Amino acid sequence: MSTKLKMLVVAPHPDDEILGAGGTIARFSAAGGEVTVLTVAAHMPPLYHESVHERTVAEARLAHAAVGVSQSIFLDFPAVCIGQTPLHEFNGAIHRAIDQVAPHIVLSPFPDRHVDHRAVFEGVMVATRPIGTGRDIKLLAAYETISETHWNAPHLEPNFTPNWCVDISSTIETKMQAMACYASQVHPFPQPRSMEALRALALFRGSQAGFGFGEGFHILRMTAGAEQFIA
Amino acid sequence: MSTKLKMLVVAPHPDDEILGAGGTIARFSAAGGEVTVLTVAAHMPPLYHESVHERTVAEARLAHAAVGVSQSIFLDFPAVCIGQTPLHEFNGAIHRAIDQVAPHIVLSPFPDRHVDHRAVFEGVMVATRPIGTGRDIKLLAAYETISETHWNAPHLEPNFTPNWCVDISSTIETKMQAMACYASQVHPFPQPRSMEALRALALFRGSQAGFGFGEGFHILRMTAGAEQFIA
Amino acid sequence: MSTKLKMLVVAPHPDDEILGAGGTIARFSAAGGEVTVLTVAAHMPPLYHESVHERTVAEARLAHAAVGVSQSIFLDFPAVCIGQTPLHEFNGAIHRAIDQVAPHIVLSPFPDRHVDHRAVFEGVMVATRPIGTGRDIKLLAAYETISETHWNAPHLEPNFTPNWCVDISSTIETKMQAMACYASQVHPFPQPRSMEALRALALFRGSQAGFGFGEGFHILRMTAGAEQFIA
Amino acid sequence: MSTKLKMLVVAPHPDDEILGAGGTIARFSAAGGEVTVLTVAAHMPPLYHESVHERTVAEARLAHAAVGVSQSIFLDFPAVCIGQTPLHEFNGAIHRAIDQVAPHIVLSPFPDRHVDHRAVFEGVMVATRPIGTGRDIKLLAAYETISETHWNAPHLEPNFTPNWCVDISSTIETKMQAMACYASQVHPFPQPRSMEALRALALFRGSQAGFGFGEGFHILRMTAGAEQFIA
Amino acid sequence: MSTKLKMLVVAPHPDDEILGAGGTIARFSAAGGEVTVLTVAAHMPPLYHESVHERTVAEARLAHAAVGVSQSIFLDFPAVCIGQTPLHEFNGAIHRAIDQVAPHIVLSPFPDRHVDHRAVFEGVMVATRPIGTGRDIKLLAAYETISETHWNAPHLEPNFTPNWCVDISSTIETKMQAMACYASQVHPFPQPRSMEALRALALFRGSQAGFGFGEGFHILRMTAGAEQFIA
Amino acid sequence: MSTKLKMLVVAPHPDDEILGAGGTIARFSAAGGEVTVLTVAAHMPPLYHESVHERTVAEARLAHAAVGVSQSIFLDFPAVCIGQTPLHEFNGAIHRAIDQVAPHIVLSPFPDRHVDHRAVFEGVMVATRPIGTGRDIKLLAAYETISETHWNAPHLEPNFTPNWCVDISSTIETKMQAMACYASQVHPFPQPRSMEALRALALFRGSQAGFGFGEGFHILRMTAGAEQFIA
Repeated sequence: MSTKLKMLVVAPHPDDEILGAGGTIARFSAAGGEVTVLTVAAHMPPLYHESVHERTVAEARLAHAAVGVSQSIFLDFPAVCIGQTPLHEFNGAIHRAIDQVAPHIVLSPFPDRHVDHRAVFEGVMVATRPIGTGRDIKLLAAYETISETHWNAPHLEPNFTPNWCVDISSTIETKMQAMACYASQVHPFPQPRSMEALRALALFRGSQAGFGFGEGFHILRMTAGAEQFIA
Repeated sequence: MSTKLKMLVVAPHPDDEILGAGGTIARFSAAGGEVTVLTVAAHMPPLYHESVHERTVAEARLAHAAVGVSQSIFLDFPAVCIGQTPLHEFNGAIHRAIDQVAPHIVLSPFPDRHVDHRAVFEGVMVATRPIGTGRDIKLLAAYETISETHWNAPHLEPNFTPNWCVDISSTIETKMQAMACYASQVHPFPQPRSMEALRALALFRGSQAGFGFGEGFHILRMTAGAEQFIA
Repeated sequence: MSTKLKMLVVAPHPDDEILGAGGTIARFSAAGGEVTVLTVAAHMPPLYHESVHERTVAEARLAHAAVGVSQSIFLDFPAVCIGQTPLHEFNGAIHRAIDQVAPHIVLSPFPDRHVDHRAVFEGVMVATRPIGTGRDIKLLAAYETISETHWNAPHLEPNFTPNWCVDISSTIETKMQAMACYASQVHPFPQPRSMEALRALALFRGSQAGFGFGEGFHILRMTAGAEQFIA
Repeated sequence: MSTKLKMLVVAPHPDDEILGAGGTIARFSAAGGEVTVLTVAAHMPPLYHESVHERTVAEARLAHAAVGVSQSIFLDFPAVCIGQTPLHEFNGAIHRAIDQVAPHIVLSPFPDRHVDHRAVFEGVMVATRPIGTGRDIKLLAAYETISETHWNAPHLEPNFTPNWCVDISSTIETKMQAMACYASQVHPFPQPRSMEALRALALFRGSQAGFGFGEGFHILRMTAGAEQFIA
Repeated sequence: MSTKLKMLVVAPHPDDEILGAGGTIARFSAAGGEVTVLTVAAHMPPLYHESVHERTVAEARLAHAAVGVSQSIFLDFPAVCIGQTPLHEFNGAIHRAIDQVAPHIVLSPFPDRHVDHRAVFEGVMVATRPIGTGRDIKLLAAYETISETHWNAPHLEPNFTPNWCVDISSTIETKMQAMACYASQVHPFPQPRSMEALRALALFRGSQAGFGFGEGFHILRMTAGAEQFIA
Repeated sequence: MSTKLKMLVVAPHPDDEILGAGGTIARFSAAGGEVTVLTVAAHMPPLYHESVHERTVAEARLAHAAVGVSQSIFLDFPAVCIGQTPLHEFNGAIHRAIDQVAPHIVLSPFPDRHVDHRAVFEGVMVATRPIGTGRDIKLLAAYETISETHWNAPHLEPNFTPNWCVDISSTIETKMQAMACYASQVHPFPQPRSMEALRALALFRGSQAGFGFGEGFHILRMTAGAEQFIA
């Protein structure tokens, strides 16, 4: 792999990047790729105490280290209150971050039950249009976030069906360890955001694609040539 | 629960009824419900040796006993060769079986990658139209079959998104034991039809609906009144 | 039926609950079920005169009595101006009301042409996630509102196709009487919100499901076990 | 209206043309348009007695006269057994009939629960491709057939949502009289193919589009210029 | 064609009306139809310098003259900042303009990547409901805007598939000349909004429908009778 | 690029591989990739004269040479008569060919208006399931065939929306030359299968993705890791 291959993972909140793409990030960074995580919203006032903010950022840094993230950017919009920022300002902040990273691969949240996920998805879609920086993006895809993504209304709102599955059999344990760093965000089984549910989803996605553990994505735009794959 | 509540599970091939609804059947029969499994096709000549047919039927009887099935009907159409029977004869055979059972609840396969699943789905849809026997069906739903159902083409063919999830936390082990009866149909992990993948799917479906293990269904028609539920 | 079975019908404006589910409510309450109607928005200033508000609330009370509603809650957000309330406050108000009722069955408006219907649908979807109170909801479904629901853009926005039809042959006249209580909201035929159109829709929905008159719903999540139906 | 405007209505079986488009035909012929009905399948052996065939054709002629049909063509494929004819022969027969009529407007059945409707839809789609005769077709649309069309699986198979509604307030009684000619095909209310259900559907479709009674269609291709409408 | 036939084309920004419907407008006006263009947003402060506003309005007037527009209305909402106007005010402004024109045909933007296109689409959908003025609209359709419309997320957001194609072989050069009037909005090939891309799209749309050059539309509601076409 | 990277393009009839993927093939082979074209059906008796068969195969060999195809396999099923072969035999023939090639990338026709395209799509989907040979396929996608693919019924049948666009600016002329080899299959403009329409589609697809000329695909399954791209 070229040492210059760069991937940007956009997380609405700390933990989404690991839930959706932790294994893919770990495999990518292990192969020499450069990963940036752009965290857009924060668990901060007015809806959260500042201490929650500090804790989740600290957890994020540990989790990012676990999967080999090179750069962590935090935009610090207050969670659930994004709608109170003018749209062009919010989208502009995402746009500038993407332009600065100039990635080849971008992973976005899926537009789902959580309103922040939809706002960030929209911002990413605008910022990655195939003009300017966007022309150099080879692959743009949306990852799933356990619970939120699968709580979209069946047959009314977009329902997640992966067309890209990455074999994370070699990095599933790394993903689980990274998730464990988010102690404040993990809940005990049988709650939906449990370690058990996360592992089960990975095993199920693997079974769809012919390997042990996997992460599923919805491809939004790919422009790589057929010869730009490594056999 | 009324002792008269009857459920019919239509299986294209032996094992589909356990893969898709084994936990729901076990919970239903444990509560006093009467379950019939209608197995439509068989692993028989010309594509399979007769010994495979005998073995899978024997496995089916064990599996059915494990989950509390009352009646097992085998129509014995040769697998993958259903298209060579005139459509009205094939559909007629399914129709007669459904009329004979006169069920309140019908579980159908999902129309997926396996051509037999689509043929059986079509036969069930015709037989359960809301005329004649069909008028007494309170609930008609399609279950998922691990691997086949998730191999429909993303965004081109119907992709399974459950709108009905049954909590099978109390019967997950019974389901797994019933599946183990189908020794000839189970493959070792990481193959898609493994015990591990089946359990992972159940855990994932549970996480979508707020409990430990679940089975997901796509509701095709429900006519129960709102007061015909038990709190 | 258990005397404890509770149903919550969420109405964006007074009359939506009768248009969409009047017959189902009447049948449910007649069987001993307890029904709460949560009316979210009101025809109040700045877009409506306060007298309109008073009149429609008075009509609502009459209509609710006609179909056997036990409890009527009015949140009094100004119609068409919901977007001016911060999202987490608006959703929070719906959430608290649902938590207070702790229903087994929830009926939501369909996300359609009327912007308030979409806002309320979103609020209900967030409040009924399968965590906390949401875990006890056995059935969550969206009803149709004549005219608004069928004015969604064909093939661009979600188009209503019922997968649950309730036989309201025994309560169609009660539904019509309840609708007649909303004298200010009913228009003469051939206007879309006429008594004639409402009755025709019920007859058409009935014909889809094999009985005389019906109400159609789009199921969003069902978690009842198969044995939790009454034959 | 030009005296040369020609419309072709393709009916899988006798009565579908009235169920789906009787009011539109009557309005069109009253204005001087020329209507051909092409009936593809017949209620004939092996599944029906020849006397049924004769009766339904006689009923068709009466119904066609009632709505002003100019020409009635019967292809006489045996109902439900179309699959036993090689596809290119079946499609070829439809193609030749369409070429002979050279219509400006073509109304096709919707691909629904009845397998013959899907076969005929496919034949019409092939025959009307925008090459040869097909280039002169200004409008191609699919009509709904009460019951069959609304028995497609919700959210799995195509669900009918009209984007074209014709005001048949002036011809609703003519449509009902034409349907009454099909005495052998009409069932008493509350059966789905009742006169009451047919009228209710027309009233509901009217309410969607702002008039009293309507017929709904799904447009498959329109090529008229914006100036080729009459105000 | 009746001299009274009136068409309204709603453009979010100057140039959308030509990109999406320039050839159809030119053909319609050449046949004697009366065309109004309603331009909703403007390239004005705070995001654009006032000189950009003046320039694009001047370009619009030239372009409108080229295709035979009778009336040009500019609502002057600041581009990308529409969300800061209360929804009922924004929708009300569109509503009043439509009521004033009282058109038979309305062409709307498609709800796509550009947030203004979605806001205007919503406003048009509300204003054209089949009540009041909306009852006289015979045809309501959405046009495509090169680049923006085709940047909707595949299989997640509505993807443009035309069901109405107008043959603009006779007006393609007029369309291209009108587009050339928007010198500030046209970019050199291979940028997406190039003259070459615009012509290629027209040729491709023509090929879908059997003629040389075409414009594609998504029909939202048609209520013309079948006899209200000109052969 | 690894010299071992292998791509298989499955063509229902001679010319589909060039129409859909000629530029992508040329770019891939120029970079050292190995391309096999599997042509499934032939323009042969009973519907075509044997001389047509010979001519189209000869044209195919020229076209394949033009874009750098390494291996050409012809299965010689009679066009439009595939339905007369038992399904498991037809699918088996495709399966064996794919197993023999053992490709990393497979390009399939899109399931569209031409019944042979749907049969071949189905055969490819079965043969490439992620078991056995299928597990080594990194990318499976469907290409569009001008005219046929865009004649699927809008909003009823799958409508082509690309999520993968390959920049063929460097090979567009090679593609056009290869297409010119199919003299018997090309029609003069403004017919749909003209050189002009093919070039226009390429330019339009390019404009969607930010480059001059492109080919669009619908991804069916990708399993490459994020690091298996070349920057």
